[in-house]
Amino acid sequence: MPIVVQKYGGSSLADAASIKRVARRIAEAKKAGNDVCVAVSAMGDSTDELLDLANEVSPQPPPREMDMLLTAGERISMALVAMAIADLGYTVRSFTGSQAGVITDSSHGKARIIDVTPGRVTDALDKGHIVIVAGFQGVSQDTKEITTLGRGGTDTTAVALAAALGADVCEIYTDVDGVFTADPRIVPAARKISRISNEEMLELAASGSKVLHLRSVEYARRFAIPIHVRSSFSAKEGTIVTDTPTTTNAGDTVEAPIIAGVAHDRSEAKITVVGVPDHPGKAAEIFQTCADAEINIDMIVQNVSATETGLTDISFTCPKTDGQTGVQALRKVQQSVGFGSILYDDQIGKLSLVGAGMRSHPGVSATFFKALADTGVNIEMISTSEIRISVVTRADVLDDAVRAVHTAFGLDSADGEAVVYGGSGR
Amino acid sequence: MPIVVQKYGGSSLADAASIKRVARRIAEAKKAGNDVCVAVSAMGDSTDELLDLANEVSPQPPPREMDMLLTAGERISMALVAMAIADLGYTVRSFTGSQAGVITDSSHGKARIIDVTPGRVTDALDKGHIVIVAGFQGVSQDTKEITTLGRGGTDTTAVALAAALGADVCEIYTDVDGVFTADPRIVPAARKISRISNEEMLELAASGSKVLHLRSVEYARRFAIPIHVRSSFSAKEGTIVTDTPTTTNAGDTVEAPIIAGVAHDRSEAKITVVGVPDHPGKAAEIFQTCADAEINIDMIVQNVSATETGLTDISFTCPKTDGQTGVQALRKVQQSVGFGSILYDDQIGKLSLVGAGMRSHPGVSATFFKALADTGVNIEMISTSEIRISVVTRADVLDDAVRAVHTAFGLDSADGEAVVYGGSGR
Repeated sequence: MPIVVQKYGGSSLADAASIKRVARRIAEAKKAGNDVCVAVSAMGDSTDELLDLANEVSPQPPPREMDMLLTAGERISMALVAMAIADLGYTVRSFTGSQAGVITDSSHGKARIIDVTPGRVTDALDKGHIVIVAGFQGVSQDTKEITTLGRGGTDTTAVALAAALGADVCEIYTDVDGVFTADPRIVPAARKISRISNEEMLELAASGSKVLHLRSVEYARRFAIPIHVRSSFSAKEGTIVTDTPTTTNAGDTVEAPIIAGVAHDRSEAKITVVGVPDHPGKAAEIFQTCADAEINIDMIVQNVSATETGLTDISFTCPKTDGQTGVQALRKVQQSVGFGSILYDDQIGKLSLVGAGMRSHPGVSATFFKALADTGVNIEMISTSEIRISVVTRADVLDDAVRAVHTAFGLDSADGEAVVYGGSGR
Repeated sequence: MPIVVQKYGGSSLADAASIKRVARRIAEAKKAGNDVCVAVSAMGDSTDELLDLANEVSPQPPPREMDMLLTAGERISMALVAMAIADLGYTVRSFTGSQAGVITDSSHGKARIIDVTPGRVTDALDKGHIVIVAGFQGVSQDTKEITTLGRGGTDTTAVALAAALGADVCEIYTDVDGVFTADPRIVPAARKISRISNEEMLELAASGSKVLHLRSVEYARRFAIPIHVRSSFSAKEGTIVTDTPTTTNAGDTVEAPIIAGVAHDRSEAKITVVGVPDHPGKAAEIFQTCADAEINIDMIVQNVSATETGLTDISFTCPKTDGQTGVQALRKVQQSVGFGSILYDDQIGKLSLVGAGMRSHPGVSATFFKALADTGVNIEMISTSEIRISVVTRADVLDDAVRAVHTAFGLDSADGEAVVYGGSGR
C-alpha cells in the first residue's frame, strides 16, 4: 500500500473547526487507499503563548525545561487531531516524537535528527491505523531527554518520517497554495510554481522564502523524498519539490524555466566594521569573534583598501535578532583588532533571484542589474552562488525591486502558466 | 539525606506568580537539607480547558487520545515550576510520569499504579537536583501507552513516589490549612485536625471530604507513608495522616478524640425501584444491571415487604453523574425483573460522622440521631461501618444537619484545640 506522509502547520490547526477540517482531509487520503502518517505542529499561536508563560516565570529558562514545555503544544494538537479522525470512524494512534522514534542529538531548542526508528508507527500503520505524530520534537540519543528541532521543525519531522517509512510523497500542507515565483502579497502577478528542483528550493528557503523550512529541504534532498507543498484550504495541486525529471505525455523532458523565483528577506541587519587594518588575519579575527558569539553570518563584502591609509571596511549581514549581540562582541575586540568604529543598520532588505537555468544562460546578471537600475534601486552588497544572485538594498525600496525583477524575467503571469524560456532540459 | 515528597495542586499553580511562590517553597525544603521530589497537577483550570477542546472536536474521544491530551497539562506546569526553581539558583529536572517510572495498568482515564521504578528520579536526586514529576499520569506496563489516574490522581502520584523513594513524609499542599472537623464554609467553628488515623481519613474521603483523594490515602496506608496535608499559602502545620501512635513528651500515648469529623456530600442521587417482587434474586438482578452499566452504588436500603402485596421497594444512592445511565439501564429490565416503577431524586444530601473512637464508645448513635431530630432533620437512609454513621437527608437541610452534629459532638472550638473525650488510646 502506498505510504503518504502529511504535515499540517499551526495555521491549519488554529481551532476545533480547523482540526475537524484537517481530519477530513487526512481521512480522504486513507480512503483513497494509502497508509497515512501525519506530522502536526502546535495549534495556532499556542507555542508563542507557552513562550510567554515561560518568560513570565524566568528570564533565562533552562533549555531542557523549555523543550519539555514547548513539546506540550504538539501533544495537544496531535491528540485533538486523532480524536477528530476517530470521530469520522477511522482508527488512529497519536505518538510523541519520542514514541515515533525521532532520535536527535542533545542540542535543546535546535536539535538535529540523527536517526528515525519508527517501529511503533510502522506497527500502527500495518494494523490499518492512521498515525499522527507530534512534529518539532524528538528524544536525544545519549541522554533520553526530550528535544525540539527549532522553529519550523515540523517540516523536518514530516520529511524524516517520510524517509524512514519509505513514503511515496511528503505532503506539506500550509495556508498558501504552494511555492510562488515571489511573495504574492508584494507581487500580485506572482504565479504558483508547479515544479521546482531541490537545489532551487534550498536557495529560495535560504533567501527568505518561508513556505518550507530550509532543513526539511536539505533532508528531502539527501533522502530523495519528493515534497508536495499545498494548501490545506483547497484541493488544488501545489508545488512539487523534487530532482526527478518530469516527462510529458510524449515522453519528452519538460523544459525548465531559467528562473524559479524571486525571494526577499527583511529579517537581516548589516554591520559594518570601519577602518580595519588591511593586514592578513584581521578579517579572520572579526569573524571568529562573531562565531564565538554564535552569530549566523550571511553576506560579506570587503571594500577595496584605500592605499594611502592602509585601512579597509568590512560589512556583513546577520539576522536582526543576532545584531546587538554581534555589535557588543565586536566592541570588546575593537582594541585588539584595531578597527575604527562599528556601524549598525537594520533598515536593509535582501533580494535574491534563484534559478538553476542561470548556470547555462549568460545575460541573467545583465537583465537583473538593469531592472534594478531602471527602478532606481541602489545596490549595497552583492553575493552570488551558481544558481542565485542576491543583493542588499534599502528596506524601503525592496518591494519595488522585487516587482521590477519579477517583471524583467517574464515571471508575471495572468494565466497561471510558467513562462518557459527553453532551456537546459534538467 | 532525608527525602521529602511534595505535591502541589492546580489551585496552587494558577499563574506565573503562584508558580514562583511554589518554587520558593520547594527551594526552602531543599535548603533545609532534604532531597526534594515534587508532584504537580496541571495549572488552575487548564485540564477543564483541554476537556472543553476535546469536546468541541469529538463527542466521544478515544480514551487513549484523551489521556495523551490531558497529560499535556502537567507537562506544562512541571516545566514552568522547574524553570522558576532554576531561576532561584537551584538545579532541577522535570520528568513526565513515564520518565519517572510510574507504571500503571492500561485503563485509560482511571489507571491504577502497578509499580514505580524511579531510576531517573533517584539519579537526579543523587546528583543534588530538585526533581519535579508530572502528577496524574503514568505509562502502561504492557502496551507502553500514556495513561492517566483519574481526577485527583496527583495525590496518588505523590504518595506512590514517596513510597518508592522511601521518603520520610509526603506533603500534600493545597488551598486549605489541612483536614477540618467539617467543611469550614458550612461550619465556621470547624477546627483543623492536627492528627488523624489513616482509616478515619479513608472514611472521610469516601464520605465527601475533598481534601485528599481516596486512593492516595489507601496507597499511603498500604505503604505506611505519613501524609502531611497543609496550605501552600501559609507556613502553618497542617494535618498529619498516619497510623503511627503519637506520644507526648511524657511518653504517654495521646488520647484520641472519639470523633474525627463530619463529612458531607451533595454529589449523589437516590434511585428507588418501586414494587419489586419480594423473591430471592430480584435484588441481585437489579444490582447486576447497575454493575453492567458501570454505576458505582453507595448506600442501599430495602423496605420491609408489605406482606399483603408481596412487593418491596429498593432504594440506593449513586453519583449524580451516573444517575440517568442507571435509570435507563433499569427501565430496560423493568419487564424481566417485574418491578412497578422507578423514582429518581437528586435533591438529597449525605452526612457522615467518622471516628475510630466510636468503636469503643456506646451512645454515639444516640447522640447523633438526637442531634438530627432536635434540628428537625428527616432521615431517609442510614448506613454504618465500624467507625462511621452516614445518613441521607433532603439537600436543603444538609447544612443545618452538619452544624447540629458538629456541635453535638463538641467539635465546635474557638481556640482551635481538639476536644478530647478520653478514649481508646489507639
